[in-house]
Amino acid sequence: MSPAIVRRGRAILRMGGSTLDVQRYDRFREVLARSSFDAVVAASPANTWYLSECNIMTQKALPERLAIVVWPKMGEPVYVVCGLEAGQARAESWIKDIRDYVEFVQSPIDLAVAALSEMGLTGGRIGYEATFLTAHYYDQLKAGLPDATLLPVDGFFDRVRMIKTAWEQSLLEDAFRATDRAIRRAFEATAPGQTEKEVSDRLQVELLREGAEGTAFSVLCTGVNSLITHPVPAGRVIADGELMRTDFGGIFGGYYSDVARTVVVGRPSDRQVATYEWIWAMHERLIAAMTPGRPVAELYNLCQTTYIDAGYPCDRPHIGHGVGLGLHEHPMIAPGTKEILQPGMCLCIEPNLTVPGVEKYHTEDLILVTEHGPRVLSRSADWSKLLCVTGG
Amino acid sequence: MSPAIVRRGRAILRMGGSTLDVQRYDRFREVLARSSFDAVVAASPANTWYLSECNIMTQKALPERLAIVVWPKMGEPVYVVCGLEAGQARAESWIKDIRDYVEFVQSPIDLAVAALSEMGLTGGRIGYEATFLTAHYYDQLKAGLPDATLLPVDGFFDRVRMIKTAWEQSLLEDAFRATDRAIRRAFEATAPGQTEKEVSDRLQVELLREGAEGTAFSVLCTGVNSLITHPVPAGRVIADGELMRTDFGGIFGGYYSDVARTVVVGRPSDRQVATYEWIWAMHERLIAAMTPGRPVAELYNLCQTTYIDAGYPCDRPHIGHGVGLGLHEHPMIAPGTKEILQPGMCLCIEPNLTVPGVEKYHTEDLILVTEHGPRVLSRSADWSKLLCVTGG
Repeated sequence: MSPAIVRRGRAILRMGGSTLDVQRYDRFREVLARSSFDAVVAASPANTWYLSECNIMTQKALPERLAIVVWPKMGEPVYVVCGLEAGQARAESWIKDIRDYVEFVQSPIDLAVAALSEMGLTGGRIGYEATFLTAHYYDQLKAGLPDATLLPVDGFFDRVRMIKTAWEQSLLEDAFRATDRAIRRAFEATAPGQTEKEVSDRLQVELLREGAEGTAFSVLCTGVNSLITHPVPAGRVIADGELMRTDFGGIFGGYYSDVARTVVVGRPSDRQVATYEWIWAMHERLIAAMTPGRPVAELYNLCQTTYIDAGYPCDRPHIGHGVGLGLHEHPMIAPGTKEILQPGMCLCIEPNLTVPGVEKYHTEDLILVTEHGPRVLSRSADWSKLLCVTGG
Repeated sequence: MSPAIVRRGRAILRMGGSTLDVQRYDRFREVLARSSFDAVVAASPANTWYLSECNIMTQKALPERLAIVVWPKMGEPVYVVCGLEAGQARAESWIKDIRDYVEFVQSPIDLAVAALSEMGLTGGRIGYEATFLTAHYYDQLKAGLPDATLLPVDGFFDRVRMIKTAWEQSLLEDAFRATDRAIRRAFEATAPGQTEKEVSDRLQVELLREGAEGTAFSVLCTGVNSLITHPVPAGRVIADGELMRTDFGGIFGGYYSDVARTVVVGRPSDRQVATYEWIWAMHERLIAAMTPGRPVAELYNLCQTTYIDAGYPCDRPHIGHGVGLGLHEHPMIAPGTKEILQPGMCLCIEPNLTVPGVEKYHTEDLILVTEHGPRVLSRSADWSKLLCVTGG
C-alpha cells in the first residue's frame, strides 16, 4: 500500500464526530429501514468496525473482550467498549454515545441490554450475530431480554456489506495491488536452496513496506507441500524446478487483502508451463463472466464443468468470496449461493488446480463488478505466463 | 526464536502417530477422569491445537470453519476438520480417527454429534466451549443432542492448560526471549524523527528474523499516544524526549509471546528516569511475590495498594495473565481470581503506570512459577534502567 492509503485511511478513521464514508451509513440505514428489526446488536470486529469506524485491535486478539454497537431503527446508536479501549473509541469513532465496562466485573451484554431498555425496545425484534456471539454471551442476552424476539442478523449485515462504497473500493484496490507488489518482489528474490520460511518472511516484510498494518495469513509452500491447502511455512528447502505458491493477505485500515500466485523456482518443465497457461485461461474466463445480473453460483458451475471436461478434479467447496472487513464475506462463490452479481461487489476469484500427487496451482484476483463489466483490482504486473524465478 | 525452536517445534508437531509431549495428555486424561463429563467437545483453536497438535491456520482467519476434537472419558478421540484441511490434519495430528466435512454442505456439528452417537453418549454429560462456540453452532448442538446434558467446559480446559508441560515451558521461554531481542533491536534503531509505523514495522521484521510464524498484535505508541491502551501504529512522528512503549507478541509453533517495554527516544527528563525506576522496582516486587501457594489475587492487591499509596491511579481490570496457545489464559491476575499460584504456571505480569494527561509506562515479563520461586523467562538484556535510544 502506498502512503496515500495510510493517510486516507487514517484521516477517515480519525475524523471523530463525522465520517467521510457517508455512503455506508446511507446504505445501512436504508437496509435497516426495510428490515423487520427494531434494533440490531453488532459485536463482531467486522460489523462493529463497519458501524463505528473504530478498529480496536484486541477485538481480534481477545474475542471475549466484546465491543458492541446497538443500533435502533429509530434513533442514534450506542457503542459499548471495554474501559481499556474507551480512550481509543472516543478519539476515533464518530458515535457520540460511548459506554465502557470494567472487564471481569461487568458484562458488555448488560450494557447493551440497558441501552435497548432506554430505547424502549426490550420487547422488540432484536437482531444478534448468531455466527459470532458465543453461547455464553447469547445466553446472557436471552436472559436479559426475556420479552424480546431475538433473530439472527447475520444475513442482514451480509447484504449491507456485500456492496462496497466508493471509498471501500478504492481502499481494497490499493491494498490488493500493494499485496501483489509484495508477492512479486518476494518471489523474484527467491532461488533454489532457500527455505519456505525465508520466502514467507520476505513476503511479510515486503507487505509491511507497502503500508500494511500486518499480515493476516501467509501460505507459502513448494513442491509436494503445495498439495496441502494451508501449510504453515517451515524449513523445507526449495529445489530447482519446484512449483511455489502463496495465498497471502494483510490488513490495511482494518480491511483484508487476499492474493494467490504460483510460480516455478528455477527451471520449469513443459508440463508446468502448459498447466499454468491452462489454469490462467480458465481464470480469465471466470473473470470475464463476472457481469451484473449473473447468478454467482453460475461461476462455480462454469469452473467445475471446465475442470471435469479437462479431466481435473474439482472438489472445492467454493472458488471465491467477497472480502472487506471480513476475509470471507458474502457472497461465497459456491454451488448453493442464491445471490446475483451486482455492481459494487468486490469478489476474490480463486480457481485452483491440483495435479494429484504432484502439485497444486493457485491464482486469486480481486474483481470489482461494475455496470460496464468486471474490473481487476489486484494486479501490479503481468502474471499471464508462468513466472520462473532464480533470485537474480 | 532461534532456529532450534523451529526444528523442535516442527519435529513434535510433525511426528504423526505419536507425540513427544506426553505430559499434556497424561494431565488432560487425569483431569478428565476426575471430572463429571462423559465427553468434551473442543472447538477453539487453542483447545483443538492442544489436543490434536495440529495448527490449522484458517481456524483463526475463518472461525466459522470449525475443527473439533471430541474426546470421551473412556476411549479414543475423534478429530473433525474441514475437507480443505484434511491433508494437513492427517499429516500432522497424532489422532487417528479424522473425519472431514464439505464446507457449506455439511455442518461440523453434525459430524461431532455422529461421533458422540457412536460412542453411546447422546444421553451423556457433554462439555462444550461456552465462551467459544457461537450461538449458531450451539443451537445445532442442542438440537442434535436433545437427551444430553450440555455443560460449559471452559473452566475444565483452563485448569488443564494453566500448568505448562516442560516442553511448553521451554517453547515459551525461547519465544519470549526472542520477542525481547526483537524489541531491543527495533528500539535501538529508533531515533527522533521516525514514525510510529516505521518502528512497528521494524518490530515485526525483527520478530520474523527470530523465527516467529508471524505477529499476533503490535502496539507501538509514543508521547501522548501512549495514553491510549492499544492504538494502531500510524504516521505520528516521534519527537526528542518522548516516551515510546510497545506491547508486542508473535506466534511461535502456535503459542503466543507477549512482552511490553518502555524507553525514551532521545534525551529523557529526570521525571521520566525517576518514574521508570519506580515502576521497575514495583515490577520486581510483584515478580518476587510470585511464589507457589500465594493467591493470584494477592498480586493484584499488592500492585493496587502500592500505586494508591504513591498517588497513582490503578483502575486496570487485571495486571497479568496466563499465556500459551491463548493470549490471555487462565488465571487472570485480577481481583476476583480464586486460583492459587502453582509450579508450572507461566504468567505474564504487566503493571503499567499512567501519568495522567502525559504518558503511560508499560513493562511485561513472563514468569514461570517453580517450587524454588519465580523464574523470569522473557529477558534478553537488562531493562532495569530507563533505556534511551537515538538510533546510533
